[in-house]
Formats: sequence, structure tokens, C-alpha cells
Amino acid sequence: MAGFHCLTFLTDYGLEDAFVAICHGVASQIAPDVRIIDITHMVPLGDIRRGAVVLSQAVPYLPPAVYVAVVDPGVGTARRAVAVEAGGSIFVGPDNGLLSLAVAAAGGASRAVSLTNQALWLENVPATFHGRDIFMPVAARLATGTPLDETGEPVEVSSLVTLPAPEWRLAGTELAGTELAGTVAHAEVVTVDGFGNVQLSLPGTEAHRAGLIPGAAVTLAWDGRETVAPFVTAFGDVAPGELLCYRDSGDWVAIAVSQGNAAGQLGIRAGTRVTLAASAPGGKRPRW
Amino acid sequence: MAGFHCLTFLTDYGLEDAFVAICHGVASQIAPDVRIIDITHMVPLGDIRRGAVVLSQAVPYLPPAVYVAVVDPGVGTARRAVAVEAGGSIFVGPDNGLLSLAVAAAGGASRAVSLTNQALWLENVPATFHGRDIFMPVAARLATGTPLDETGEPVEVSSLVTLPAPEWRLAGTELAGTELAGTVAHAEVVTVDGFGNVQLSLPGTEAHRAGLIPGAAVTLAWDGRETVAPFVTAFGDVAPGELLCYRDSGDWVAIAVSQGNAAGQLGIRAGTRVTLAASAPGGKRPRW
Amino acid sequence: MAGFHCLTFLTDYGLEDAFVAICHGVASQIAPDVRIIDITHMVPLGDIRRGAVVLSQAVPYLPPAVYVAVVDPGVGTARRAVAVEAGGSIFVGPDNGLLSLAVAAAGGASRAVSLTNQALWLENVPATFHGRDIFMPVAARLATGTPLDETGEPVEVSSLVTLPAPEWRLAGTELAGTELAGTVAHAEVVTVDGFGNVQLSLPGTEAHRAGLIPGAAVTLAWDGRETVAPFVTAFGDVAPGELLCYRDSGDWVAIAVSQGNAAGQLGIRAGTRVTLAASAPGGKRPRW
Repeated sequence: MAGFHCLTFLTDYGLEDAFVAICHGVASQIAPDVRIIDITHMVPLGDIRRGAVVLSQAVPYLPPAVYVAVVDPGVGTARRAVAVEAGGSIFVGPDNGLLSLAVAAAGGASRAVSLTNQALWLENVPATFHGRDIFMPVAARLATGTPLDETGEPVEVSSLVTLPAPEWRLAGTELAGTELAGTVAHAEVVTVDGFGNVQLSLPGTEAHRAGLIPGAAVTLAWDGRETVAPFVTAFGDVAPGELLCYRDSGDWVAIAVSQGNAAGQLGIRAGTRVTLAASAPGGKRPRW
Repeated sequence: MAGFHCLTFLTDYGLEDAFVAICHGVASQIAPDVRIIDITHMVPLGDIRRGAVVLSQAVPYLPPAVYVAVVDPGVGTARRAVAVEAGGSIFVGPDNGLLSLAVAAAGGASRAVSLTNQALWLENVPATFHGRDIFMPVAARLATGTPLDETGEPVEVSSLVTLPAPEWRLAGTELAGTELAGTVAHAEVVTVDGFGNVQLSLPGTEAHRAGLIPGAAVTLAWDGRETVAPFVTAFGDVAPGELLCYRDSGDWVAIAVSQGNAAGQLGIRAGTRVTLAASAPGGKRPRW
Repeated sequence: MAGFHCLTFLTDYGLEDAFVAICHGVASQIAPDVRIIDITHMVPLGDIRRGAVVLSQAVPYLPPAVYVAVVDPGVGTARRAVAVEAGGSIFVGPDNGLLSLAVAAAGGASRAVSLTNQALWLENVPATFHGRDIFMPVAARLATGTPLDETGEPVEVSSLVTLPAPEWRLAGTELAGTELAGTVAHAEVVTVDGFGNVQLSLPGTEAHRAGLIPGAAVTLAWDGRETVAPFVTAFGDVAPGELLCYRDSGDWVAIAVSQGNAAGQLGIRAGTRVTLAASAPGGKRPRW
């Protein structure tokens, strides 16, 4: 087997303890020549969806790799530990949905295995640190060329836990016949990044269908509140502290404050439903 | 000399400045082929005991290495700078107790040197950044095969500063003859990790002698307060937000809150003395 | 072309998202054998001066490298993207002053290029993530030996944006003829590090000219306030919690609190003007 030159690592372990280094140590003893790229270890504790989103965002820019991801509030319980082959990479972690968005981003699962071959684990595995004891040693062995099917029992890829895809849709307004006739977009907040930028579930490639194009004024409505932001291409197109709407670096419609924190300012969080309606500058905004 | 393929690094330097990268730069120019594993750089400023505990926890999982550790409130004063050989690795840092728990975890010191050979330091050493100017350049040279005895004067290993080991003991209750006859455990808090999990000084291998086995209800008493937690094997064995007692991934008896912060919730910190008494569910709890 | 073995990376991206890892992934696919040293990713959002100072502090201790630095509030606007050759290294980033202090620390710019060769960029570049799409792919190609002049159009080094150097000067007091006759130093705060240590613009090599030598008592005045601190060589020369004045590890005059946070305690920040006057212990302090 060829194996992999790269192993990536994402967790909610934080950076204050030795947990991440311990996993690096385990990997480096099994696979000393493999490069480890840490994606992040600051996923909020137990936040599977946030971990899944961050992991999936990295996939298009990383080389073929063994991806280890551990956000695992059910560690030690009946949830499966799995390795999933997708798009030339292998994703290793708990079967709780954490891997699902990345697997989809990589092209979808072609094979999956339940990690039941204890010969590849560390010895004397307690129930609280599977990153160290199961996921990392198995991943390091996959990186050195151990075949996927030696890591455990095959499972149907359709049986893997997947997170529900965030919803979005375009809908006509009740303003047909006016200059605002057109389409509003209903989306939800997929994630808030470390700057407070708000990524929505609306693909950037669909934005123009709702009139979300540079120069438009966008009325945003959420949780009974509303405000207006210009649709622009760069943060610097507005003054520091001002709100903007744009297509972000992952090509999703997003909301930000230039040099500020949009989520904090608007009181928005992951899962919040947001409606966007574009109008030409000076035009009337739609009633919702 | 064979040298080492791996150099590890633990400090209280934080991640906001270039201090860690500067040390990496120094090492990479002396030992360009050595892999550096960062253990953590978020030890609270000057907290020698916390640094010592985290360092010692990593030892069993890292390859033979030169360990550089710098939590050094006495930098520039009379405290010695040392390199200590233990269990096939070398530990480099200030002689203030920081290295002592890791040296013990590695099997105990076999040799030690006071780093007095200034030919191995950077030039023009000020009194505030020995990580950059002394510890890292000496460690990188050790990694490339410079013999330990060339780094300075030998010192007696018995003269090295060691931290007092946290205490624990088992003791009979005053309830002999009742169904609670048995043993209570007195321990102290060794460390609180980044999640607020509380690691006690009681070895997991001794837990059963105090009745601390899965299924037991454990009465915890500290600072005049008390509460009860189930003894379980996995966080997921209790509901989110609930307290649990368990053997942690380092095999110490520990207290946690599932998806929460036990230390914060209980008002416990490193050094707090905790008494644990197990009873069968529904049984009376011991008087202290 | 020889290229570089080392690529360094400094940003304000933070550690909560995949942004840093995405850039590592881009680099590792173009230049898989290059070592990446992360300087810091915790520059406060958009704080160009802070980024410039931290970057410049690292330069003397890093090997010849391609330096990528991204603190770029003007991303996507008309500001240039540049690569600057200085002292055997190449500095890549936005032309907003961020690189200027490091370029000076490396010996000054010998050549500069505006990064206009889109063939070296990733495809479909949006306006918000030039670290991923322009700076890192171009830098990785420079590391593998692509000549600087292939990355774009040459620009005059004199046209590069530079930050104003922080000011400092020595001045006589109005106390000539007294035992305090001598010199006071006027400086400004260059940066506050993660510990709250306050680095001033006064070079350590000039300190003695203002009487700032070990043993002196230093009267510090700023923002209408004043206090006195001993001038010492090591943090441990004062008790924990006490103020000190010293020559820091970069050889600048600095103010700290032993095991504490000087900037927080004194209400000082980057840009604050500070006056320092030394007197022998027990001597009168100068009137300002």
C-alpha cells in the first residue's frame, strides 16, 4: 500500500494541556515520516456541528491525507469508531456526524470500516481518550500503508451518521408588480468563525438569483429584528465598524462587520434563520 | 553520539508573541532535521507545578527526545540551568522542580549537568530569555549528538530540586460493623485541565480498595462542602451537565462534569484536599 | 534557483478556524519538503503595527526563509500585494507597512515585486482570503526556487509603504547643577506582549546615557501619572507583583511587573508616551 504523506488533526482538546502533543507523539512513533497538519483544536467542547463545518472547509485545500477528527461527547459509549474512505483520503473518528460534511466535501464515502481490530490500538484502552488510544494509532498505521480493511469490520456507508444539511431556499415576495418584485432568500447560519463572521447556508453561486450582487442593499431579518447591509466584494469596501454582506472565501453568502464582530453585534449564532432581500439603493425594502 | 530525532517544547510563553517561534528558529538552525513537538505554551505564567504535571503526563507517549521546558520565574537569578538524563531522554530547563515529575515518569535521573558551558549558548545572553539563549541552543546541540557531559559541570542527581509528591492515603471509617464498613480515600487535586476536569492524587489502580468501582455512588467532601457523584467509566454514562467520578486517561481518579467544567462548578483548584467515600446506591453515606 | 528550506507564517487569523491549516495545506502541496514555522496567528485583528513589531522581533533568530505575513484589513482593495527581498530572505504580504519593520531588521529591501502574475495564484480568487489564494501559493513557489522576478512587476523599494519608526530622544533636565543633573529619556510604547510587558522605543544600548543602569531608581511618567521602578537585570530581582524597568530580550528598555501584567496595572498601551528619569536611590527625582 502506498499510504499517505500527510495526517491532519482536528479536536476540541484545547491548547492548555498535553492532549494534542500526546497524540502527535503516538503518531510520530508509528509513522515518523508523516507530516501532521493541525487544523484546529479549539472546537468548542462537544460541538459536533462546528467541528464538522471547520473540517469540511479545510478539505479542498489539503493534500490527500488521513484525517483524524475527535469531537466526541459519546466517547466510551456505544457509538462506533470508524474510518471512511472518500475522494482519495481516509477520515477517522467517532461515527457521530463529525466526519460527514468533510466526507461529502471530499466526494462522498466509497468504503467504511468500524474500527474493531484492537491489535492496532494502544494497549489497556480506558473509555475517555480514544484520540490517543484508538483514532491516532489506527490513523498512523493507515498512513504507513496498513490497508483500510485490516482496521476492522466493513460497514455500509449508508449506515454512517450524517448531520442534516443546513436548509436554504429562494422564494417570491408578496411584492410582485412592484419594483421589488423578485426573490428573497431564506437561509440559516452554518457557522460563526473566530472573528464573528456569519456564514450562511446560501451558496454564493445562487446569490445573484436573489439579487445579492455587488452594489445591492440587503435587508437582513432574523429573530424579529432587521437591518440593512450593502452587498460588496471586500471588507475594505465599507468603513471599519460597518456591516457588510458578501460571498466569503468558501463561496457562501456571509455577513460581517469590517474589523468587527458581526455575530456579537447582531446577536446571531449557528442555527439562526436569516432572510435576505435585496433592493437597489434607495428602493423600498420588501415587507416580509 | 546518536542524538535524537525529536525535541519537545513546553513553556508559559503564550501564543500571542514570537517567543515560541524564535526558539523554533534557534533550534532549526542548529538541528534542521529534528522534529519539534510543542507540548503546550499555555502553562499559566510562572506556574511551575502545573507545567511539571503537564510535562510528566506527556512522557509515556512521546518518543525518546530532548525535552525543553521553561516555566522560569527565577530566570536570571541564581537558580541553576540543568540537563537531566532519564530513561533514554534528556530534560533541559531551570532547576526549579519543573522537570522533576517528568524525570520521575521517565524512570528517574541517571545523570545531570549544570549548563555552564557558555560556548554552546547564543552570544550576549541577557537575563530574561534563557529559553532562546541557553536552553534551546544547548538542547538542539544535544539532539545533534553533542555529549551531555560537554554541556557543563556534572551535578549530583540528588541535588536536583524536586516538587513534593501530592499526598494520598486510604483510611478506615468510623462505621465498622455497618454496611458501609470500609475505606475512605484522602487525596489532593494534582491538576485541573483545560476543560475543568479535576485529577486527584489517588492512583486508579488503588481505587477499588476504597470501593471506587463502576456503579458505586461516591460522596466527595472538600473545603467543608460535599456532594455525591456516580463512579463510571465514560463521560457519556451520565447526562450532560452531571457530575461523575472516574479513572482518567492517565489512570488517576478524577472528577468531571459531562460537557461541563467540574472545577468551576465545585470551586476546586490544584492543591484542594478531597475525601472520597463510596457506597452502594441507596446505602447510607459515611460520616466524616 | 536554490529556494528556501523554511517558510514562516504570521497572521491575525486566530486559532479557532481552519484558516491557518488551509494555508499550510496550500503550501505543502506546492512545496512538500519546506518546513513551516508559525510565528503567531494571534495578532489582534487588523493591527498592522503589532504584526509588524512581532514579525521584526523574530527575524534575527530565524533561518533564511520566505516570510508570509497577513494582517490585511484592506484585502481586496487597491493596496498592492508584494514580495520584498531583504538580507537573504523574501517577505511576502500586503503592502500596508506590515513587512516594513522586518525588512529593516533584515538589512533593508534590495528588490521588490508587485505580485501580479496570476499564473502563480490559486484559481478563482475571491477578495477576502489572499493568504490562501495569493500570498501562500506565491511564497511556496518562491521557496521551491521560482525566481522573484517571475512573481510580478518590479516596483521601486522606495515606494513600499513603511510604518513610521517610534520616536525616542534624550534631553537635559531643568535640574542642571543639582545632583540629578543629567538626562531624561522620552520614548513611546512600541508594543505590549502577551504578558503585559511594555517595550519602549529606547534602545538598550542608549539606556546608560540616561542613567538607566542596574541599581538606579527610575521615575516613569505617562498620561499625567507617575511612579517609580528599580532598574534591574532580571525579573527575579524584585518580588512578585513589583514593577521593574530593564533591558528586554530584544535589547529595548522595557517595563514589567514580576509575574504580573504591567500594561494592565499602569494603563499603558502601544503608542503611549513615557518619560524616564533615573536617580540614585534616595536621590530627589527630577521635576518634569
